[in-house]
Amino acid sequence: MARNTQVAADHNAPSVTQILARHVATHPGYLAGGWSAAVDHEAHRTFMNWLGCAVGAAHHEAADAALAAVQMLQPAAQASVLGRKEKVDMASAALVNGITSHTFDFDDTHLKTIIHPAGPVASAVLALAEQLGASGRDVIDALVLGIDVSCRVGNAMYPEHYDRGWHITGSTGTLGAAAACARLLKLDTQKTAMALGIAASQPVGMREQFGTMTKPFHPGAAARAGLMSALLAQHGYTASPKALEAPRGMMQTVSTKNDWNEITGELGQRFEISFNSYKPFACGIVIHPSIDACAQLRAQGVTPAQVERIELKVHSLVLELTGKKEPVDGLQAKFSVYHGCAAGLTFGRAAEEEFSDEVVNRADMVALRRKVVATVDDSIDEASADVTAVLTDGRRVHVFVEHAIGSLQNPMTDAMLDAKFRGMSDAVLGATQTAALIEACWAVGGAGDIRALTALARP
Amino acid sequence: MARNTQVAADHNAPSVTQILARHVATHPGYLAGGWSAAVDHEAHRTFMNWLGCAVGAAHHEAADAALAAVQMLQPAAQASVLGRKEKVDMASAALVNGITSHTFDFDDTHLKTIIHPAGPVASAVLALAEQLGASGRDVIDALVLGIDVSCRVGNAMYPEHYDRGWHITGSTGTLGAAAACARLLKLDTQKTAMALGIAASQPVGMREQFGTMTKPFHPGAAARAGLMSALLAQHGYTASPKALEAPRGMMQTVSTKNDWNEITGELGQRFEISFNSYKPFACGIVIHPSIDACAQLRAQGVTPAQVERIELKVHSLVLELTGKKEPVDGLQAKFSVYHGCAAGLTFGRAAEEEFSDEVVNRADMVALRRKVVATVDDSIDEASADVTAVLTDGRRVHVFVEHAIGSLQNPMTDAMLDAKFRGMSDAVLGATQTAALIEACWAVGGAGDIRALTALARP
Repeated sequence: MARNTQVAADHNAPSVTQILARHVATHPGYLAGGWSAAVDHEAHRTFMNWLGCAVGAAHHEAADAALAAVQMLQPAAQASVLGRKEKVDMASAALVNGITSHTFDFDDTHLKTIIHPAGPVASAVLALAEQLGASGRDVIDALVLGIDVSCRVGNAMYPEHYDRGWHITGSTGTLGAAAACARLLKLDTQKTAMALGIAASQPVGMREQFGTMTKPFHPGAAARAGLMSALLAQHGYTASPKALEAPRGMMQTVSTKNDWNEITGELGQRFEISFNSYKPFACGIVIHPSIDACAQLRAQGVTPAQVERIELKVHSLVLELTGKKEPVDGLQAKFSVYHGCAAGLTFGRAAEEEFSDEVVNRADMVALRRKVVATVDDSIDEASADVTAVLTDGRRVHVFVEHAIGSLQNPMTDAMLDAKFRGMSDAVLGATQTAALIEACWAVGGAGDIRALTALARP
Repeated sequence: MARNTQVAADHNAPSVTQILARHVATHPGYLAGGWSAAVDHEAHRTFMNWLGCAVGAAHHEAADAALAAVQMLQPAAQASVLGRKEKVDMASAALVNGITSHTFDFDDTHLKTIIHPAGPVASAVLALAEQLGASGRDVIDALVLGIDVSCRVGNAMYPEHYDRGWHITGSTGTLGAAAACARLLKLDTQKTAMALGIAASQPVGMREQFGTMTKPFHPGAAARAGLMSALLAQHGYTASPKALEAPRGMMQTVSTKNDWNEITGELGQRFEISFNSYKPFACGIVIHPSIDACAQLRAQGVTPAQVERIELKVHSLVLELTGKKEPVDGLQAKFSVYHGCAAGLTFGRAAEEEFSDEVVNRADMVALRRKVVATVDDSIDEASADVTAVLTDGRRVHVFVEHAIGSLQNPMTDAMLDAKFRGMSDAVLGATQTAALIEACWAVGGAGDIRALTALARP
């Protein structure tokens, strides 16, 4: 049974490959006033959130497997595997760090496209920067411009491209990684266009892989492919100068929606990294309002022992995606708004630890989940939640969360990002080194050789 | 301007990921009677034709650029860059050899899908085999099974997938390379399915890249990605067990036509490598009948000096694709049936040398091209050509080629493949070493350690 497609190629697309290449190659950068201090601060938040995720998952079984495969190549010790002792060649470091940064599903989200932009871009650019001895300033500039490329291409193709089956983080990430690495290598417009062109032949990732190690492989493979595309272009390798927009170029091949204005509009004025967000909770975004509401109940003094019943009202989509009533392990719990509520009320948080198999199967958690009564109310936005704790003494405590913590309207504070980072890194690097690494992340835009920072990211 | 797509996912696809994995992992192989001697001989022809192409293009500027980029990783000396002194890590060797094997557009063609199957598969499997010290027998078995995977997936999606913009050699080649490497690593069915699954997230290549170095990059990148997918699976990396066929798996994401029977039909009885073909001439397939006809005129004693006019009758498609009357360089000449006729009559051949800028601009070639008068006749098949040489003395010599040399109906002989190989390799490796390498290729299915052969492929 085949699908039906009517294909009418667009022969009049603007030269977005060239336009993006010029943007990346000739942009003056932050120090020349290229973007605001707020944008630059968001880039630092993106960088440190990404790095913390990568360090946190450094010893996950996916990292072990990927590193074991990479070691078969007997790689040179060029760049750090974040959170581990090993160094590998820079392309392999981009791969492994891209994998670990997305393993917990805890990294950044560009909400307009649900791209996780840092995974491909930062993983590529940091590995290359470490090998080059580039400055922290150049890393952040490259990160801003690389993310601008992948998210603008994503904006143009979303949602059709995603609906079709592409994991948009990997499919656009190769372009972002290539752009960032081209910037770091100081390639001119023509060679940057070649880097984008080579990358355009390598979109990575299908959504069928969600729930397997190949999901986090997507940003890793995109990082690696983007870095190599830039190195190839640097050494004279050629590609089509219309590789993105031509009728048989990348975008028209992988998407039937291509709104070119999303790429060209306000270029150099609006930076997509401004729209990046960070998850406080290690699970899907639709559970966040419910967890937040229950954490607020806890902050108001409500304890699990007092609770007779938790009345939860949410949009139907929340139960559709995360309606698992009796999760039996950590992975299932990530799809259980019931567990989210129990974790919020019990711990006031829901990081990776609160989704461990052990916590999920604790008797008190099982009991508390069963006290959650969820009702569908489509008058409530899917980004909101209405929670009432009915206590054993008959009292009712009500919380309504319009915009959950971590949303664009209610972003995590820098201090919250610090705490999230420590929650992931302390166990890997120790508290002292973690504190120094956090400090280095916030200061990276003013740093000289980036290798001072990467040294702190290894135990 | 967006395209319109009606997407109706097929939720009832057979488990082709598992079916192909079992085919690859459990097939008894040639020595246990798994396929005929004819199939095995075709595998040898595929292997030697591929190797000759890779050696021939070893010093092309695309090879230089790719190798320079790879050297930035300071690779370990694991596997040979064919035709060169350098060794690099096996994944990079797969990349570079995949590039060189397709650089001249002179490699093998699976005519049902216009996949060039050896580039991705053989490049991956030889590099891995060299590192492992595998036997030549295991290499050929892996090649047969890997090509079966990529071409069967190609059969299922062709032509819609290709029409949409995918360079089908790279998009299916990752799967073939992963399958072949999984076989060589002796992975079981479950791990082979994981290798295919990881590979399924990495289709490579858009047709917009034709005419640039990124076209031959596609089989190279597919080879590299397939090899790494197998190594990842070997070390426990996981993917969806339905990565190929699921509604949001690879095939439904990149093609609206998916004829599953093409994958499952006659599996283990019909081997797609049987339908592989080899080009005698270093240009697009539609010019081949015209070159062949003119070479036959030459064989009958007709010389350029005698010719007043060459009357060429061909299908309209031939002139549409290759109607360039006055080519100014080698690349343009590959799209000129006029140059093809001149080369056929002058040299009796049209290898890479006859498409050099120098030959293309020779005064006698320019003059002879101008004597070719082409006429469209759609009663003639596009795989045929009708040529009449009108001589200065008034005589007319007529040749009709129904199936050009190199077609399935009129395949190149082994001796012709030898000559083609020498034409590419003699200048790179010298005649003596080339002769030894040719002999080693024909004997590879009986060879012990493959490294005896790869040593011969380095100067």
